[in-house]
Amino acid sequence: MKLGRLNHIGVATPSIADSVAYYCEVMGASDITEPFDLPEQGVKVCFVNTPTDSGLNGTQIELIEPFDESSPINGFLAKNPAGGQHHVCYEVADIEKAREHFESLGKRILGPTRTGAHGTPIFFLHPKDMMGQLTEIMETPKEGSH
Amino acid sequence: MKLGRLNHIGVATPSIADSVAYYCEVMGASDITEPFDLPEQGVKVCFVNTPTDSGLNGTQIELIEPFDESSPINGFLAKNPAGGQHHVCYEVADIEKAREHFESLGKRILGPTRTGAHGTPIFFLHPKDMMGQLTEIMETPKEGSH
Repeated sequence: MKLGRLNHIGVATPSIADSVAYYCEVMGASDITEPFDLPEQGVKVCFVNTPTDSGLNGTQIELIEPFDESSPINGFLAKNPAGGQHHVCYEVADIEKAREHFESLGKRILGPTRTGAHGTPIFFLHPKDMMGQLTEIMETPKEGSH
Repeated sequence: MKLGRLNHIGVATPSIADSVAYYCEVMGASDITEPFDLPEQGVKVCFVNTPTDSGLNGTQIELIEPFDESSPINGFLAKNPAGGQHHVCYEVADIEKAREHFESLGKRILGPTRTGAHGTPIFFLHPKDMMGQLTEIMETPKEGSH
């Protein structure tokens, strides 16, 4: 496998509204997507777009807020009430090949391959097998926005 | 202030050698810089370069290992023995203006402005004032590599 683009870092927050205000007022962000629900993953989501030399196409900040009481990020927020860095997400060209790669290395994959926040297939890997980082692998969107 | 490039995410590790092997063998990285000591900050450092459409110029993974027993990241590793996401670093055009900006908002700055791993001035902001994220602000290198 070849290292793919660092698509986003996932940042858990108790309040997307507070985080959006923070990224605008404190960090100077100018492009934040509208929040939407991802009930399958138990989160509400939006993206802060960051700049590169050629536009606002850098690694995104994915803000995630619990969707309900059964959200998988409630445990993280109980330990980190202000929120914080939750996961990293790398792109791959072919999700099935990537899944086989990590399986062949004995890495624990957390659940089935499913559709992620960018509408492409994703899966997560156990942080204990990934140098302490909860790691999301996503298939690169076929065209247009990341 | 305008949101700058997400220069790197800092990932603490008990062993840069183990992390380099992990990024090469598990994640497929092809470009990792030589580790060097940054005793002023109490860490050994190297960078994993990640791809974009135009080269290996994406947001970097900064691997940091304790330099000695007084390293500021020893506490983090005591809580996270396998390592993990430690900080985020955004670029700014002018470090002094950025410092004034965060000071005017009452954000706690951790120590003086000093020289960071890329050879430009940096400072850190308290995670409790930054939505749970230890945040590094660095002046963009004047030319060439990030």
